[in-house]
Amino acid sequence: MNSIFEEHPHKRYNPLTDSWVLVSPHRAKRPWQGQVEKVAGDDRPAYDETCYLCPTNTRMNGEVNPDYQDVYIFNNDFAALLEDTPPHSFEEDELFKAATERGLGRVICFSPRHDLTVPEMEEVAIRKVVDAWVDEYLTLGGKDFINYVQIFENKGFVMGCSNPHPHGQIWASSSIPDEPMKKQIAQLKYWQKNQRSLLADYVEKELIKQERVLFENEHFVALVPYWAVWPFETMIVPKRKMARISDMTDAEKDAFANAYKRLTVRYDNLFETSFPYSAGVHQAPTDGEAHDEWHWHFVFYPPLLRSATVKKFMVGYEMLANPQRDITAEKSAAVLRALSEVHYKTK
Amino acid sequence: MNSIFEEHPHKRYNPLTDSWVLVSPHRAKRPWQGQVEKVAGDDRPAYDETCYLCPTNTRMNGEVNPDYQDVYIFNNDFAALLEDTPPHSFEEDELFKAATERGLGRVICFSPRHDLTVPEMEEVAIRKVVDAWVDEYLTLGGKDFINYVQIFENKGFVMGCSNPHPHGQIWASSSIPDEPMKKQIAQLKYWQKNQRSLLADYVEKELIKQERVLFENEHFVALVPYWAVWPFETMIVPKRKMARISDMTDAEKDAFANAYKRLTVRYDNLFETSFPYSAGVHQAPTDGEAHDEWHWHFVFYPPLLRSATVKKFMVGYEMLANPQRDITAEKSAAVLRALSEVHYKTK
Ligand SMILES: O=P(O)(O)O[C@H]1O[C@H](CO)[C@@H](O)[C@H](O)[C@H]1O
Ligand SMILES: O=P(O)(O)O[C@H]1O[C@H](CO)[C@@H](O)[C@H](O)[C@H]1O
Repeated sequence: MNSIFEEHPHKRYNPLTDSWVLVSPHRAKRPWQGQVEKVAGDDRPAYDETCYLCPTNTRMNGEVNPDYQDVYIFNNDFAALLEDTPPHSFEEDELFKAATERGLGRVICFSPRHDLTVPEMEEVAIRKVVDAWVDEYLTLGGKDFINYVQIFENKGFVMGCSNPHPHGQIWASSSIPDEPMKKQIAQLKYWQKNQRSLLADYVEKELIKQERVLFENEHFVALVPYWAVWPFETMIVPKRKMARISDMTDAEKDAFANAYKRLTVRYDNLFETSFPYSAGVHQAPTDGEAHDEWHWHFVFYPPLLRSATVKKFMVGYEMLANPQRDITAEKSAAVLRALSEVHYKTK
Repeated sequence: MNSIFEEHPHKRYNPLTDSWVLVSPHRAKRPWQGQVEKVAGDDRPAYDETCYLCPTNTRMNGEVNPDYQDVYIFNNDFAALLEDTPPHSFEEDELFKAATERGLGRVICFSPRHDLTVPEMEEVAIRKVVDAWVDEYLTLGGKDFINYVQIFENKGFVMGCSNPHPHGQIWASSSIPDEPMKKQIAQLKYWQKNQRSLLADYVEKELIKQERVLFENEHFVALVPYWAVWPFETMIVPKRKMARISDMTDAEKDAFANAYKRLTVRYDNLFETSFPYSAGVHQAPTDGEAHDEWHWHFVFYPPLLRSATVKKFMVGYEMLANPQRDITAEKSAAVLRALSEVHYKTK
């Protein structure tokens, strides 16, 4: 790492989204008198009769959850996207344009155990979540009106999650959303120019540099991207170019579960708290094209900055002008790399 | 408004940033069991001896604030951008690109009174803030290494504001940040195609439709943009095309202060709370070009959704895929339009 960037305000390029992030390394010294988050009590029971995701409980809409043993998936009772949306598009002129958006929403309970989270689950149990994602990607993506399947997890109250029961979501839509579309455009441009995968080249270089890599296993690398925006933002990237999660072999699925657990254990150990984040997959659309340009990856956007209770606010300048971060990606990587892969609760 | 969009999930186009927002009108019925914000006590003293923005107090760096009577401006003690940043740029290949970023940060105290906010200030006092912005825009923009001047305000703890004393910030940079750059590109395209201002055309049409307009005065229109992302997002737009705030006449500056106050009073009245937001100006860069395409405007991004304590979380799907909102812009406009312009505290 060029030492000038360790100390001085600078911008870095994100080749995946063709955008820049402002980095202000010196600013980490800033005192904080602002909002302090509540830490959610971490003494949940294994089963909570008031939780609408626990097995055998009745949901808001009157449906009863089965006595499920590992993963349980159902249609989101309050989905933002709906299957029966009538097609309609409107274009008064270039200023007023709208179109209905057909889609659907799914909820995936990761475990029947109300008191667990991914870092506390066994790798074999996490592997079942991965299998469920692959199934859903193929089934939803197979519908003719679904062109993109967004798999994600909001973890922690501070991330707008309303239920601590371990679960993720899928929002599948007719349109390709903004963020994966940006990544598609950038990857396609790189692919056409170099006949190589942008992320394969990137990971290869990161493995040589060893400045931002956290760890690797046989099939995946976990790292803080050079262009990270969130203080402890990371990515899990497959070493081999694959357009979509359904391209994974069994061994790769196991290896992903391994990386997913090891990374989230480090996160929990960082501030000895159940570490909040939004995380999910970016991969090829399900629009029937090959998408050789796509190299799928898993991103984590965690808000905490200094402690379990002080987060980074993406407000003001960030909303109006440009994403900005206070510590360098290299420093974050060094901190995460130094952490144990044994969960603090089990010590 | 086409009634199909009142009820069904749809996407709307934002011609200013060339992006789309997903709108899920039916989703407003969703129950909320998630995070509830603390409401900051609203019984602040007119002077607080522990506040580093109050007159006569000593700041962190040892400097003493003067006994200022209206607006007071100083260099941010913890600026993200610095004047003495050495120039340096780095491009290993298309994947690793960075450059130092020179700039500076300013803090503007809007009033010596610790207990006021913009909606509680007199219009003549707000006018002084507007004058200060114009001065700063010209002075900072006049420096050869400053090409963009971002004027903004973070209001409320929920927006990462660490001090309730009424104040805003300015971050001035050598680069043109991402968000204004998007708006510049879109406005330039429209200008070259139509020889007209995108926003002048837009406002003219909104004044005829009267579906999203909140109010107008002689020189400004306050409205919920067709493509609003935040639940109660609004814009104040000058009726006449002006590239920058320094183009305003005296009468226009007064009219802006009037609109700024009236809109923020409505905001406070919405949930009878000091309404949090990030707000600020988007305008022409200070790069020495004419920028005829630019039509400056003032945007408000407020997070509250249902009450003083329940906000919209832009997480998960929004971070990974696409901005999404739960109520239509028309419904938000109807709610804001129905509110009084007399501040609830003075009733
Ligand atoms: O500069 P402040 O008020 O200390 O900090 C606040 O505003 C900045 C600019 O919007 C943000 O980068 C910070 O995350 C936020 O906490
Ligand atoms: O669907 P949930 O978990 O009720 O809601 C949460 O996740 C959604 C998708 O990321 C967001 O749109 C909501 O703002 C957030 O509160």
